[in-house]
Amino acid sequence: MLPTPKKFFLTAASAEGYSELTAFDNALLAGRIGNINLIRVSSILPPGAEYDPELSIPPGSLVPTAYGYIISKVPGELIAAAVGIGFSEDTFGVIMEFAGKCSQKEAEARIEAMLREAFASRGMKLVDMKIAATEHRVERIGCALAAVPLWY
Amino acid sequence: MLPTPKKFFLTAASAEGYSELTAFDNALLAGRIGNINLIRVSSILPPGAEYDPELSIPPGSLVPTAYGYIISKVPGELIAAAVGIGFSEDTFGVIMEFAGKCSQKEAEARIEAMLREAFASRGMKLVDMKIAATEHRVERIGCALAAVPLWY
Amino acid sequence: MLPTPKKFFLTAASAEGYSELTAFDNALLAGRIGNINLIRVSSILPPGAEYDPELSIPPGSLVPTAYGYIISKVPGELIAAAVGIGFSEDTFGVIMEFAGKCSQKEAEARIEAMLREAFASRGMKLVDMKIAATEHRVERIGCALAAVPLWY
Repeated sequence: MLPTPKKFFLTAASAEGYSELTAFDNALLAGRIGNINLIRVSSILPPGAEYDPELSIPPGSLVPTAYGYIISKVPGELIAAAVGIGFSEDTFGVIMEFAGKCSQKEAEARIEAMLREAFASRGMKLVDMKIAATEHRVERIGCALAAVPLWY
Repeated sequence: MLPTPKKFFLTAASAEGYSELTAFDNALLAGRIGNINLIRVSSILPPGAEYDPELSIPPGSLVPTAYGYIISKVPGELIAAAVGIGFSEDTFGVIMEFAGKCSQKEAEARIEAMLREAFASRGMKLVDMKIAATEHRVERIGCALAAVPLWY
Repeated sequence: MLPTPKKFFLTAASAEGYSELTAFDNALLAGRIGNINLIRVSSILPPGAEYDPELSIPPGSLVPTAYGYIISKVPGELIAAAVGIGFSEDTFGVIMEFAGKCSQKEAEARIEAMLREAFASRGMKLVDMKIAATEHRVERIGCALAAVPLWY
């Protein structure tokens, strides 16, 4: 089997680019995850995973990551992205992502509601939350991105 | 290299949610794959992989999974998702996914046609098929999802 | 952790199908990556990875792959896809993907510009590029796809 991740952190950042993919790439760089290979996952924090905001991951590594992002080519538009982790008492957590044409505050509120719903759906008690969010006023081509990289 | 999966099952389920991502999350839960980390793959059943419908996968595991889904916010709309596996005589199989605004019956028919085409394209003989499908009449925000998790 | 890939190649191909997913499947087959499980990554060439255009990967393998594609159902439409790798002097490289309604030549030019921007953003010197691209005039349902599979 593939090894289950043991560590995690949260990041959120926005950037401009000259193309959609480079705007995305620049947002990854701004979020300090631009030089690794993100593998998108949906989206559970493994039991016992430790929070490590100082994690340094070698370039080119394959990194399971829950993320949400939005790219906009409309100058002046406000975009935002958020991720959140809901923690249980003693088992796995749940990760939620959101991105849209809204403020950071609204993105955070959406994440919080989604985490509450995810825990209610599982009949689990939500004991804590961590949220990371970003907003960005588009200049040319902008990207707002929020991610929870999972690592070892 | 990453270890090649050795087991598989099929699942299909629909659910409602208060947001698009929680509708998706609830469909995963209804399909018994809500507490793992799906890694989306496209989409070959490894040679020799065994069918195990009772597979129990630890929470937070990284699970290579072929899946299709549709989310709709249009109350009253009928949505469906299907996955199918085409089996060869003695080597790998092919997995196809479909999701759309249609009935389960139509989704199944689409999958069957896609599997026949995939085998014809490969010049391989299709000896058997397994299909899982679901349909859902949207109430508020609905998701129909079908998946083939691959495991070890 | 997941093992970091050590080898790579580039491929680009187009195909027709009777459905969107089989057009995609046929493009993968035409590009010689149709019988493996692609895991999409974003998108760094690991340091020291070797170019091996003759790589043969066992069917069903899980293969981290950076790719871009476009599917069109508009007969007569010209579609194209391209991938490119920018190489540094002595560390990791950057992979960019593009797909759109344009010619192969334009897709290649877009990739080249994106690679230059990606290296500028990182303050790194771009010493070489490899690009693979394809274009396709849609007959019924067409797919143009370009990929950089990473392997071991």
